[in-house]
Amino acid sequence: MPDRPAILLDPHPRRRQMIFNPAQWARLEAMAEVITADVEGPLPASLVEEALPRVAAILGQTDMPSARIARAPHLRAIINVEGNFQPNVDAASCFARGIEILSVGPVFAHPVAEMALGLALDLARGITSTDRAMREGQERYGRSGNDDAFLLSRATIGIVGFGYLGRALRRLLEGFRPRILVHDPWLPAAAIAEEGCEAASLEEVLSTARVIFLLAGVTSENQGFIDGAALRRIQDDAVVVLASRAAIVEFPALVAEAQSGRLRIATDVFPDEPVAPDDPVRRSPMLLSPHRAGGIPAAFHDIGERVLDDLDLILRGLAPIRLQRAQPQTVALMRSKAAREYAKDEAERLAGKN
Amino acid sequence: MPDRPAILLDPHPRRRQMIFNPAQWARLEAMAEVITADVEGPLPASLVEEALPRVAAILGQTDMPSARIARAPHLRAIINVEGNFQPNVDAASCFARGIEILSVGPVFAHPVAEMALGLALDLARGITSTDRAMREGQERYGRSGNDDAFLLSRATIGIVGFGYLGRALRRLLEGFRPRILVHDPWLPAAAIAEEGCEAASLEEVLSTARVIFLLAGVTSENQGFIDGAALRRIQDDAVVVLASRAAIVEFPALVAEAQSGRLRIATDVFPDEPVAPDDPVRRSPMLLSPHRAGGIPAAFHDIGERVLDDLDLILRGLAPIRLQRAQPQTVALMRSKAAREYAKDEAERLAGKN
Amino acid sequence: MPDRPAILLDPHPRRRQMIFNPAQWARLEAMAEVITADVEGPLPASLVEEALPRVAAILGQTDMPSARIARAPHLRAIINVEGNFQPNVDAASCFARGIEILSVGPVFAHPVAEMALGLALDLARGITSTDRAMREGQERYGRSGNDDAFLLSRATIGIVGFGYLGRALRRLLEGFRPRILVHDPWLPAAAIAEEGCEAASLEEVLSTARVIFLLAGVTSENQGFIDGAALRRIQDDAVVVLASRAAIVEFPALVAEAQSGRLRIATDVFPDEPVAPDDPVRRSPMLLSPHRAGGIPAAFHDIGERVLDDLDLILRGLAPIRLQRAQPQTVALMRSKAAREYAKDEAERLAGKN
Amino acid sequence: MPDRPAILLDPHPRRRQMIFNPAQWARLEAMAEVITADVEGPLPASLVEEALPRVAAILGQTDMPSARIARAPHLRAIINVEGNFQPNVDAASCFARGIEILSVGPVFAHPVAEMALGLALDLARGITSTDRAMREGQERYGRSGNDDAFLLSRATIGIVGFGYLGRALRRLLEGFRPRILVHDPWLPAAAIAEEGCEAASLEEVLSTARVIFLLAGVTSENQGFIDGAALRRIQDDAVVVLASRAAIVEFPALVAEAQSGRLRIATDVFPDEPVAPDDPVRRSPMLLSPHRAGGIPAAFHDIGERVLDDLDLILRGLAPIRLQRAQPQTVALMRSKAAREYAKDEAERLAGKN
Repeated sequence: MPDRPAILLDPHPRRRQMIFNPAQWARLEAMAEVITADVEGPLPASLVEEALPRVAAILGQTDMPSARIARAPHLRAIINVEGNFQPNVDAASCFARGIEILSVGPVFAHPVAEMALGLALDLARGITSTDRAMREGQERYGRSGNDDAFLLSRATIGIVGFGYLGRALRRLLEGFRPRILVHDPWLPAAAIAEEGCEAASLEEVLSTARVIFLLAGVTSENQGFIDGAALRRIQDDAVVVLASRAAIVEFPALVAEAQSGRLRIATDVFPDEPVAPDDPVRRSPMLLSPHRAGGIPAAFHDIGERVLDDLDLILRGLAPIRLQRAQPQTVALMRSKAAREYAKDEAERLAGKN
Repeated sequence: MPDRPAILLDPHPRRRQMIFNPAQWARLEAMAEVITADVEGPLPASLVEEALPRVAAILGQTDMPSARIARAPHLRAIINVEGNFQPNVDAASCFARGIEILSVGPVFAHPVAEMALGLALDLARGITSTDRAMREGQERYGRSGNDDAFLLSRATIGIVGFGYLGRALRRLLEGFRPRILVHDPWLPAAAIAEEGCEAASLEEVLSTARVIFLLAGVTSENQGFIDGAALRRIQDDAVVVLASRAAIVEFPALVAEAQSGRLRIATDVFPDEPVAPDDPVRRSPMLLSPHRAGGIPAAFHDIGERVLDDLDLILRGLAPIRLQRAQPQTVALMRSKAAREYAKDEAERLAGKN
Repeated sequence: MPDRPAILLDPHPRRRQMIFNPAQWARLEAMAEVITADVEGPLPASLVEEALPRVAAILGQTDMPSARIARAPHLRAIINVEGNFQPNVDAASCFARGIEILSVGPVFAHPVAEMALGLALDLARGITSTDRAMREGQERYGRSGNDDAFLLSRATIGIVGFGYLGRALRRLLEGFRPRILVHDPWLPAAAIAEEGCEAASLEEVLSTARVIFLLAGVTSENQGFIDGAALRRIQDDAVVVLASRAAIVEFPALVAEAQSGRLRIATDVFPDEPVAPDDPVRRSPMLLSPHRAGGIPAAFHDIGERVLDDLDLILRGLAPIRLQRAQPQTVALMRSKAAREYAKDEAERLAGKN
Repeated sequence: MPDRPAILLDPHPRRRQMIFNPAQWARLEAMAEVITADVEGPLPASLVEEALPRVAAILGQTDMPSARIARAPHLRAIINVEGNFQPNVDAASCFARGIEILSVGPVFAHPVAEMALGLALDLARGITSTDRAMREGQERYGRSGNDDAFLLSRATIGIVGFGYLGRALRRLLEGFRPRILVHDPWLPAAAIAEEGCEAASLEEVLSTARVIFLLAGVTSENQGFIDGAALRRIQDDAVVVLASRAAIVEFPALVAEAQSGRLRIATDVFPDEPVAPDDPVRRSPMLLSPHRAGGIPAAFHDIGERVLDDLDLILRGLAPIRLQRAQPQTVALMRSKAAREYAKDEAERLAGKN
């Protein structure tokens, strides 16, 4: 490997400045030679090919089929800076070579967790609906407007999906001293107990919890698993917050539960975004958040920091710990809709441009 | 004292059923003989006078001037079930006799703290305003709508007033790992440090914190202490949540800061409630909650429990610990507007009826 | 009251320098005029009498019968700097006047709690006994010496007596995620639950817990309540740590349980101190600590700080919060052996000298 | 792969019953066909060879050179049940195939952490030395024996090495509200900050902390890095607890610091175990623990549970999470003395037997 490591930076559809602030950029340049170009879209294939023989890491969404990986003998890590593992990297070739496939996904855990908690408190207390009523001169004061209000403190709370996001939420909930039931089929009960929560079946979480957070990622196996039957298991007047991916829910059934008034529901994600102007969800009792939970300035700042921290470890021959590492066992399952669509868009783009 | 203790129950303006559910009522009757009457308004003076010679405790807002206290040789506690210490009890006579003056105020701490946190998260992330925008077809997705969004996690948070409410809020915030600056002139710095917070001057709290919770009670000395000059010390775009009493703030100055867009403000209290139909605050950017933070079903359930717990201790000759105890030093200061108005109303009512 | 408040300092049997370091002394003098004298023993009666008409507070163990209290019209607080409430202060006169009776007892809570935890870990793992074995060349390595070793983490822990000390210990145990059963007849179950513990009967604590901390103070009612029958309820091989007062235990029965090897026992207190040179307890399997748990330098430093903090509040007309306040209901019960003996010693001394 | 997965169990030098209790054994058999034999020592090579074509996992310390790995096409995991990664497994072949190399090391984290805390409390308060003094009739009571006693609460604590053990200790320390400085060259500062600690250089930890825990594992690079010069940086009278591996310390220098009385030192590990009968360390002021911190019954119970939890995940095609995973980057570095000696012993054994 060359004395000074080389890094390929291919941030599209993000821009370099969104990932690294000036101080972070200086830290990157002190660490390695940065190969990049100021282009709209992905780096030109010629630049990528020229860099492959010497790059130690790729930051970005560059297509990396097995042939390219074979041409990059010093490559140790491919760091996706968008937030999803994507199919345009040949994972098998990477794992066989000990090349890390990393994602900045963890940076969104705290922002989404705070939003999810905010949405749950809103529904438990009627914050948004009461503000609206007061603007319309329809408010009720004190106890008279509070028949349905309840505390999250010491409540039974359900979490479906206990990855970075679920664990960040659990931490935020510490002060509420809740009982937390967790359903996550990828985790043994003891791992959930170590976090102070109780492992439970999906049915048990849905039928027992007063507040339910739907936080599972989409895999090739779990699309729509929160279907109408699952929703009907939830107790009357429970609070339901959907904060990960719309595709895990049978969305029309969710809207129907909100429309009927049986459940209090908030969502940050929708099957099609932007939502159509005449979509009736806009006038439903659902609390609506237009996919804003994750992408806040603090998350983007955190991307730069985590990428640099792990790059430093990798270049020193150590294991990365601040980004999400793709697992040989599950990388094939972790294909969110966004990832697949992005892959398709990429394919079209590549067909046209390269 | 008689073998079986007697309790006078005079809950007006609350009703007995609001304070004790059936199980709690059974516990009360097992503990003592209950003297009460099903009347609108306070108990008739004749009933009170008849009971005084043998009552061990009064639950309610009965006028207790020194003469009445003198006629109650077994009296050990006067328990206000409304939530404020009121001037219709002669505190000096009570303290001289070791009679406890107790209030159910602590039951509102958790409900108000959760609401205050919900309001702060709403302002930090624009939950209510974005829901409104989406109903109007004006939403922006993802990062584009998030320029002003920030995390409470690891933020610098200011708390003004650190009684039951402030401490309940601090506990809820544990999971956010914030730096918390507390201003409370009744507390030494070491007492604040024991709670993991930093004591600070009012000026320091206002000028340093990104999120400010105004949680002080009203005393005869602090009305309007958050005035225009104080508000101007707060940094641009900070979040301010008023959740205790409107009278601690110069309210028009608060509304002006919201109108100008310089601060993000939520309030649960207003100088005059109900707010006038044409009050411009209804159309201001302020997040509006019509005095709903405290009076939720869980709080009323808690009243019964705390009253019974402390009554049990008192009847066993022990010190109460679950209700707020009036302090000889400060009882004269703790006169909220509600209390004073209630006292005036009471006086008028008494003049007319007795 | 005079413009500048006067304080009487009568620290015997402590000395002024043990209570206030130079910085603390400067803070005291800035706060008030200090009336004191450099004498062995208590202040002369003449100095006390001369001071009474103007003192705002007494720091020390001065005899304060009702007649003296009557001659101190400005008196607001009597602050015992030893650690126990003593019978040489007429409590009824104080309570009738709103004079606080305060004790520095809380300063010992943390030191004793850390020692109690250290003793429990020692017994759970055999630290002292194994060090002794290794000095004698009798050690066993690794697993072979560990048959009886167990974790406090997630263990069921019992606490008998849940005052300042018990609560300090509970806090230290947080990281161990234990189940904690608490027996304290002065506390309602809900107050114990607020601390994350479970209220239980004495029998339940003794028969259920793997580690039992005996932390109750001595009152006129509970001497020897941990008797032989109580000790026999404890499960075989449990760990028992006595860290408050020897008088709450039937001590010979405790020693017998240690001698038989049925229980693992540590104690910081003994019925007679110093322990007689030939007392067989010295050669028992009990882990022995000669009343060292509380009186460490950090505790003495804390006395000065807490006294000054509360004095400042009192002189400003506010309620003290950093020292222990005598309660009208229980002051008569809180008479530890030390207190009673001290009172007797005082009486003899007074008889001779005044 | 065959319908029912096969597992090779080769536990030597542990025995099957030490790893699985009856309930755990039943769970294992329900999960897979178990191939094993009741032999002293490792399984016969013939049995291993016969099993390789169909095994999904190996539980034990079987030699697995690349040739054997090549003969095990269904192999997904090699689970060491002793506690160290050993050189008798060809790591490169495993990583290229996505075969997990796992160790039960995490089961020892909590036991060692509790012991380390117990040793630190002992040194801070003189528990063992005072018990010894009292047995010799030399005890001093109360304050007079406490000049050197100090609190861990709010102390500055240093941790050198922040793997499973360091993190377990940090959790135990939560209730002490300490400031914790951590030195671990494999971790970015932000990862340490996420645990509520501060990253620091080794020099800063040694010179700043009042209590220092030496918890680093041995690698091929860090042997003896706590040398005499490092020890001299530690402040006078600090507490030092060595609880990982003797080889990270220049042991004679450590003993010298204890002998001189400058530092208070406890150790659970020694360069040569068993310690020679006439080793002067036996009479030194050091607090001595004969390698007992980890191997307690709870740890052995935990081995079975963690192995079964991860085996279940692996057989379901998911990633293991309860055992330590060897990292391609660092597996070559993680060679403790025990591991190397074991490898040597193994080599000798293999030479003789196979």
